[in-house]
Amino acid sequence: MGKHVLVEMDAEECWRLIEGTQVGRLAWNAPDGPTVLPVNIAVDGTSITFRTASTSSLTAQVDDSPVALEVDAIDEGYRTGWSVLVRGTASASFDAGAVTSAEPWLEGARPVTVTVRPRSITGRFLGVTDQPG
Amino acid sequence: MGKHVLVEMDAEECWRLIEGTQVGRLAWNAPDGPTVLPVNIAVDGTSITFRTASTSSLTAQVDDSPVALEVDAIDEGYRTGWSVLVRGTASASFDAGAVTSAEPWLEGARPVTVTVRPRSITGRFLGVTDQPG
Repeated sequence: MGKHVLVEMDAEECWRLIEGTQVGRLAWNAPDGPTVLPVNIAVDGTSITFRTASTSSLTAQVDDSPVALEVDAIDEGYRTGWSVLVRGTASASFDAGAVTSAEPWLEGARPVTVTVRPRSITGRFLGVTDQPG
Repeated sequence: MGKHVLVEMDAEECWRLIEGTQVGRLAWNAPDGPTVLPVNIAVDGTSITFRTASTSSLTAQVDDSPVALEVDAIDEGYRTGWSVLVRGTASASFDAGAVTSAEPWLEGARPVTVTVRPRSITGRFLGVTDQPG
């Protein structure tokens, strides 16, 4: 196998990769320290949303707060893949009539739509060159 | 398909699931806000380590600081899977002789071993019941 190389991707390439992705990992500063959980995201253009329950501690903790959202696709066997990091501010909307394409996987009311407003998007591609390593 | 259910897992089950996992997502509070990046982890019993370059900003930012590490295996098609969240404190060891089984995927010197000392480990299993939803 060739040599592994890490290549920074531009914003356009990052958006292209995360378009259509269903799962991202949301990180924020909880009162008792950093935390990170998977969420079912919808990416539409440069807008990222997910839905949650109004009673969840996540809702209260991330509303109007800085967050980071990570999306990746990694092949552990070949040790290749990509990861994208969106950093910005989350805002929770309690409008029951809000339309979002982020469909929750679980049953139960999830009337809150959280929108991540990106401040930056960066990404890295981990590939293998065709020269022997 | 049946109904999707979310089940909390106990610590023993969480450790069993992340044993042998190669990739986790590390979240921490960077000076400019929350951030989260994939790292190549080694899980040995209840010890989690990864290696990094001494010059990386990650090294300086996470040393002796609170972190969260998320590991998951999610099937987007069936919408099933599990996620485990380890929260604790990271400490960077610059001992060039330190032995770790966390093998970096990239070439280049990575003399720093970062150990995550767990304060808590929690996890959720998302499955499908066999009753129609």
